[in-house]
This record gives sequence, C-alpha cells and structure tokens, in this order.
Amino acid sequence: MLFNLVKTDSGARRGRLCVARGVIETPFFMNVATAAAIKGGVTAPELKTLGCQVVLCNTYHLHIRPGDGIVRDMGGLHGFMNWDGPVFTDSGGFQVFSLAKLRKITEEGVHFSSHVDGTKIFMDPEESMRIQYNLGSDMVAAFDECIPGSAERGYTEGSVKRTTRWLVRCADELKRLASASPEASARALFGINQGGTFEDIRIGHMSEIAELDLPGYAIGGLSVGESKEDMFRVIEAVAPRMPVGKPRYLMGVGTPSDIIESVARGIDMFDCVMPTRNARHATVFTGRGIVHATNRRYEKDDSPLDDECGCPTCLNFSRSYIRHLFKAGEMLAGRLVSQHNLFFYNKLTERIRNAIDVGKFDDFRRENSEKLSMVV
Amino acid sequence: MLFNLVKTDSGARRGRLCVARGVIETPFFMNVATAAAIKGGVTAPELKTLGCQVVLCNTYHLHIRPGDGIVRDMGGLHGFMNWDGPVFTDSGGFQVFSLAKLRKITEEGVHFSSHVDGTKIFMDPEESMRIQYNLGSDMVAAFDECIPGSAERGYTEGSVKRTTRWLVRCADELKRLASASPEASARALFGINQGGTFEDIRIGHMSEIAELDLPGYAIGGLSVGESKEDMFRVIEAVAPRMPVGKPRYLMGVGTPSDIIESVARGIDMFDCVMPTRNARHATVFTGRGIVHATNRRYEKDDSPLDDECGCPTCLNFSRSYIRHLFKAGEMLAGRLVSQHNLFFYNKLTERIRNAIDVGKFDDFRRENSEKLSMVV
Repeated sequence: MLFNLVKTDSGARRGRLCVARGVIETPFFMNVATAAAIKGGVTAPELKTLGCQVVLCNTYHLHIRPGDGIVRDMGGLHGFMNWDGPVFTDSGGFQVFSLAKLRKITEEGVHFSSHVDGTKIFMDPEESMRIQYNLGSDMVAAFDECIPGSAERGYTEGSVKRTTRWLVRCADELKRLASASPEASARALFGINQGGTFEDIRIGHMSEIAELDLPGYAIGGLSVGESKEDMFRVIEAVAPRMPVGKPRYLMGVGTPSDIIESVARGIDMFDCVMPTRNARHATVFTGRGIVHATNRRYEKDDSPLDDECGCPTCLNFSRSYIRHLFKAGEMLAGRLVSQHNLFFYNKLTERIRNAIDVGKFDDFRRENSEKLSMVV
Repeated sequence: MLFNLVKTDSGARRGRLCVARGVIETPFFMNVATAAAIKGGVTAPELKTLGCQVVLCNTYHLHIRPGDGIVRDMGGLHGFMNWDGPVFTDSGGFQVFSLAKLRKITEEGVHFSSHVDGTKIFMDPEESMRIQYNLGSDMVAAFDECIPGSAERGYTEGSVKRTTRWLVRCADELKRLASASPEASARALFGINQGGTFEDIRIGHMSEIAELDLPGYAIGGLSVGESKEDMFRVIEAVAPRMPVGKPRYLMGVGTPSDIIESVARGIDMFDCVMPTRNARHATVFTGRGIVHATNRRYEKDDSPLDDECGCPTCLNFSRSYIRHLFKAGEMLAGRLVSQHNLFFYNKLTERIRNAIDVGKFDDFRRENSEKLSMVV
C-alpha cells in the first residue's frame, strides 16, 4: 500500500491511498458491511452509485458466521458480496470485548463464547491475521484489547503494553503469510492506538507503535461513551504523533460534525454505523441539517428528502412517500433512507476533499460543522 | 380499455390489453404493492427490470393510510410510487371483510373500524369508486361482499344479489366521475363474481353481471381456504360464462401450478402475495421447483439460486451468500429473494405466453405444472 500526502490546508490533509484494488482519495468514509452486508438492504454493487470507495467488514462476525473458511472458498469478501473495490477488515478486537461473553484475557490471546450460539472460541493476534487473510481484505486491523472507558490507569498501562506486543505478533504473522503466498504481501496492516482518555498513555503508545513503520495507523477506543471534549482532547494529543506519511484512521466516528472536526485535526479515514442505523429510525442527514422522515410536516411534501442531493432516493421519491413507508412499516423505508444517508456521508468526504483542494477547508468547516449535525 | 384476444391454444388465451398507460400482454401477473410499496424493499422503478407489466394496489389500505386524498395530491399512485406503467386497484371489499373490525353490512354499504387505529369508516360502492379515482388507477375493482368460505347457501344467495346491485352503483358512480373529468373516463371497471363454492350461484351471478358489459371481469372469493378441487371446480363452471372478448382475472391466485392450470381454463390475469411473502421466509421459486435458501447444502454453493434465471439477484449473488444473509438476519436477504421470486412469476407468464404463441401450451403445462410447485 502506498500513501501519497498531496496537500494540507488548515490542519486538514488531502491524500491518495493506493491498494491493489484501486486508488482511494483521502479523507474518506468507509461504508460498514459488518457481516458482509450493508444494513438496510443495500447491495455492495449499489455502493458504487452511492460514492463509496471502501467497504468495512468485521473479522469477529464473519469468523462466527458464516465462517472465514467459507468466505475464502466463495472468493473472499469481494466474491462473496460482489464488491470489486477495496475492503478493510476490523480485527474483531472491539467485538470480542463488547459482544462476546465469558471473556478470559491472557498474554497469549482471548478465550470467549460466541454471542450467537455460545461456542467457545480462542482468538489471538495470529488467528486474527489468518482470518483476515481468509477474508481477502486489502487493509487489515491489528488485534488489540479495546478497554472500557471506565478502565483505571494501572490496568490501561498494562493493556496498551500487551496491545503493542500483540501488534508485533500481528506483523510477524502477516509476514509469515506473505512469504507463503505472494497474494498476502499486498495486505496492509494498521496498528491501533489505545489508552483510554489518558493522554500520556495514548502518546506513549502511539510513539511505540509508530516505530514499527506499519502501512497505516488507527485511533481505537474512542466514541465509546466518553465526552466529545475527551474525544477531541485525545485526537489532538495523538494525531500529531502519528507518522505524517501514513494514513490516519479514527475508528467508529461519527456524526458529520465529528468527521469535519477530526479532519481539521489531521485524520484521513472514518467509519460509522450511523448512516444506516439512524436510517432505520427515520433519521435523515441533509445539507440543511438532520431531519426526521416521519415528521407530520412532510405528509404532503412532494420534494425530495434533500433538495440538493443526487442520490437514487432523492432522484426518485418524495418526503411524502418516504414518510408513508415508515408509517406503514414498509421495509423499503429503511432501504431508501439508508442509501440516502450513505450517499450523504460519501458526498460529505468528497466535499471536504474539494474544499482542501481549493484551500478553503476552513470556510467549509465554519459553514457546515455545526449545521450538518443539528436537528432542524 | 381495449382487449384483443389474439389466439387460443388448448383452452389457454393469448391477448393484448390496451390501457392509457400502455399495452399489456396477456396472460399476466400483477405485482402486489398493497400499500403502494412492494414488500421486501423492492422499488416500483425496479419492477421494470423484473418484467412487471402491472402493479396492484389496495383501496382499503391506502384509504386508511396515508389517505387517498394525499395520494391524489402527490400525483396519484403513479407519482407517489414512481411507477409509470398500468395500475390496478383492488376495491377493498376483501380487506373490509378480512381485516376490519366491528363490521355492519347494510344495503347501503359497510360500517367498520380501521384495523390500524379503530377509526370508524363507512364504505359503499360510490365511496370505493371515488377512492380509486383519487388513487389514479387505470383498472378499478367493483366493491363487493367477500363472504367467508363457510357461508351457508341462503346467505350466499342474498349476498351475491346485493353484490350485483352494488356493481350497478359502482358503474353509475364511475360514469358520474367520468362526466365530471375526462381523465376518469379512461378507468376500466372490473365486475367481480362471487358465490362461494356453489356452482349454480356462481354461474347465475356471472350471467347477471356479464349483461352489464363491463370492460373486465374477475372471479373473487377463491383461494380463501377451500380445497384446490373446489377452486378448480368453480373456475371450470364460471370461466366459460365470462364474456369471451373481455379480460378474465382470477383474484389472489396462486402457486405457479395454480396459474398454469387456471390459464388452461381460460384465465388471463393473476395476482398473489406469494412471491414476496414466501421470499421473506427464504422460499425460492426456480425452474427446477421450490427450494429453501437456508438449506445446509447451499453453505458452500457459489451458483445462483436458479441457474437459468436472469434476474438481478441471480446475476450477482450466490446461494452461499444468500443463505448467509438469512442466517445473519440481514434485511438484504428478503429483498434479494423477493426480486428473484417476482422475476420468476413475471417470467412464468411470459413463458406461458410464448408457449401459446407457438401452439405448445399443452406441452408447457405437462412439463411444468407439477414441477414448478414441488419442493426439491
């Protein structure tokens, strides 16, 4: 993987990321397909028309169901989902610590029970790499411990040290896989920074993992319940210590405003379930702010959800129709708003890129950061 | 509306139905969008790629929600759903008698409570016509009493007499609406034959309503719990008494085999919720019979649901992927199988038409009637 930093503007970075399956313009938003499916019923081929550059899938979920061996035999995630663009896989670390039951963490790895059927599973850095290799992803995440926001300082210090040791094991296992298969050599490993909201631990950990000279780096363990203030404090502490010549990924963030504000702090990559999760609850992102599709004022409104939007939903259907679909409990409602919201997020990062290109990111931020995340 | 009977072959009829919004090749299958939405999350514009000729919507459901006045203001069903082909609306008779609560039937009409919120509603033949006029449908169904399969002979006789009187009122109201608006004159009224499983009552009623010389005729009140034997006995008694030069519609039927067998008995039009309802339960119609998408044998099967199918689902996704989507509870599963099943039903009637065209309907029936409705 090659990263080319093209330009900076008021803290924002504009770049290009080259992976085997294509060139990705940064900053960008990864469209979440946890179990190799976009929630809300959007297909992977349709993501092309929604401006999606990269799909994000989940190691933990796909290992449990259908099993990474099956995905491998079906042509990897690309063949399975029918998506020929780049794929990033999350390591499963976050899910092991948020979803799985009866966890036991040792230096070796984690013993846990599947949240689906209770099956006992052991996951360690090597296993996570092998699974992601089977899934065929272009960018892979290191297997880390994602500690709860409430973790004490002492525990956090020990945890990030182990996460660093695990990261070295991830890199070694990926090297081993690459030596056995030329195809694996194209996989780009992202190291993940942890440390809760302790700035000094975050900074120390970031410096440690930066020395490994990995293809990319991520900030994990944020947007897990801490205040926005804490989140941006950590980003501001960590981002300047992330290698300048590598892509920087802020995991699981966030609202349109969060994305704009994080780009302003030097972040290049994002992912979030909000576009599709909120869609199922009739929450619509638009250029004038957030609206609720079930609002009574849309009963006889034949304009599109967003007057300035060119998505397949806005080109074809009215607010009145979409409100009716939600009221009638029609599955189509969630699908139409999901594709609109995904288009909005992909377009948001495109607008950010364009603003940086012409040196007007500051103006863009001032005009949009607050507005786009307000309910109107 | 003009109907042109082009050819007959072993009891099957091949024709062309011209309505303001296009030419419909018969026999055909109407794709059900009860509340102006296809269940399973398929959009109306997508129906074009699934071979759909006519969309069927429901007067009762749309009157209750969002209200036919709103649909009218949003450009009728065509503007509301974004479907520019022909639309047929069911009268609401069936739903008033199957869904509504606290019904009271008088000569005038029916008092009932909405199944959604209990609102008291009065529906009569005139009101049903006015609602369907608001909805903007091309073909409208008469408001009839749909009696339960268990109804006694005496009640059935009285009921069909009233249904005939109501039919005259429907025709008069439609004339009145047409005189007030040239646009309404294009609406084609279908009279509905009732009479339970009493052949003589069915025949008497059919003869009575045939005298009204309406644009089309339907057989209602079948496929409501009676045996297949009874259903075909009634069709065989009624169809020969339906005017030869008018389209013949068998309401709410049925399996692929039911459709083939009914075409053999002179029926031209069908509708059924099976393609989408069964899809949500992973039941797939294919050229080799009915299969269940969740079957274990599809776990590593990378072939499409139906090897001979050209639908967007079969062109893009494997059995393995679709099985996984069902197992993971992904909404996309229902959508992909719904569009496959609708394509299958539309293609089935196309294959029937082709067989009649070349004088080989009997061969087609022999090869497919049993096979297509068997679970394999």
